[in-house]
Amino acid sequence: MDSFRVKVVEKIFNANDQVAATNRARFDQAGVFTLNLMASPGAGKTSLILQTIRGLRDVLRIGVVEGDTAPVTIDADKVIAEGMPAVQINTGGDCHLDAPMLQAGIAQLPLEDLDLIIVENVGNLVCPAAFNLGTHANILIASVPEGDDKPYKYPAIYRGLDALILNKTDLLPYVPFNMGYFRNGVEILNPGVAFFPLSCRTEEGLSGWTDWIKERVIRHKQQA
Amino acid sequence: MDSFRVKVVEKIFNANDQVAATNRARFDQAGVFTLNLMASPGAGKTSLILQTIRGLRDVLRIGVVEGDTAPVTIDADKVIAEGMPAVQINTGGDCHLDAPMLQAGIAQLPLEDLDLIIVENVGNLVCPAAFNLGTHANILIASVPEGDDKPYKYPAIYRGLDALILNKTDLLPYVPFNMGYFRNGVEILNPGVAFFPLSCRTEEGLSGWTDWIKERVIRHKQQA
Repeated sequence: MDSFRVKVVEKIFNANDQVAATNRARFDQAGVFTLNLMASPGAGKTSLILQTIRGLRDVLRIGVVEGDTAPVTIDADKVIAEGMPAVQINTGGDCHLDAPMLQAGIAQLPLEDLDLIIVENVGNLVCPAAFNLGTHANILIASVPEGDDKPYKYPAIYRGLDALILNKTDLLPYVPFNMGYFRNGVEILNPGVAFFPLSCRTEEGLSGWTDWIKERVIRHKQQA
Repeated sequence: MDSFRVKVVEKIFNANDQVAATNRARFDQAGVFTLNLMASPGAGKTSLILQTIRGLRDVLRIGVVEGDTAPVTIDADKVIAEGMPAVQINTGGDCHLDAPMLQAGIAQLPLEDLDLIIVENVGNLVCPAAFNLGTHANILIASVPEGDDKPYKYPAIYRGLDALILNKTDLLPYVPFNMGYFRNGVEILNPGVAFFPLSCRTEEGLSGWTDWIKERVIRHKQQA
């Protein structure tokens, strides 16, 4: 009775994943490496983007896609003031970017003239984790004043990371934060993930992050 | 041709709003005042709950509902350690509480023996704003290290507030934060909203908040 066995389709891409695959193909065709930068509101996404531009502007051409829930261009204006191209996506209140939004956004950028695109997702530790954008690497910025228990409370977003930044280390003397407890929570979810404690404000630790991303961009170009 | 005019149904409650109305009726029947406490991850929701319990435990009986995306009882355990009843709702990864989740949660609390229930929503500045829980007041905790531009970037959650707390004022000397810019963004969205700058860590400013909530609980009992 083998002929009556249920047929199983191994993997069906949903609509978002289909568009994400199209985005990825477009990035690879243009030879541009792309980051999905996620964080809680106020953890320092825009500050990190500005510091990354300042640290790498002599060696990489960087574009930025800014996701916002409201039609404000505060962040995109700051990127443009640094002399780099930026596109703002207004999600219309939605709590995350999805692949079709990013597809529309990158259509406004000169992909062939860029080495790196940083996509700033909506500030949110829950929803962005569920939407593949087609980018090459998932980065999360945690920040010291948020507290050391966030990996335990928001595990889904920590699981899929390629690198974790801990920003605002300059505030460690002023707030309770147990580094061992934080690191242990991260290691349970994502063993060996690249980790960069730094301060966008004092610039301490930034070079570890910019070296890592520069190396990833170069390796991606070599593989293309 | 009046008979052909389109008939308009003025207001249809969706399923969530229907359950929210049931929750509200249950609260009012029991004579308990209820808060929906929202914030970004790490702004200090649990710290504020613990300080509110400490400040009001001699005059009010307080219960807590903790919303979490993961099955961790870190926050609920802290409330129980203060000698107050707590229920934990695991949203199973969902980014907000909804009225049916709260209905299930309050079924585990002795409502008739309580004066105040604080519902700690999932840490998120976007999604919780869209779900009526049936609670009497919406409270948001902003925090100084998140930055002064959050009202401009996450306007939806600021519009529906009954009170706004700005936590971590002890960090004002260490981070850039323009209080006028922040307040102006809030006033555009929600003119005259009750505002409590405070520090859960140093306890500065806490009494303004606890006085306000005590007065709201007493007024609610008188109106019942």
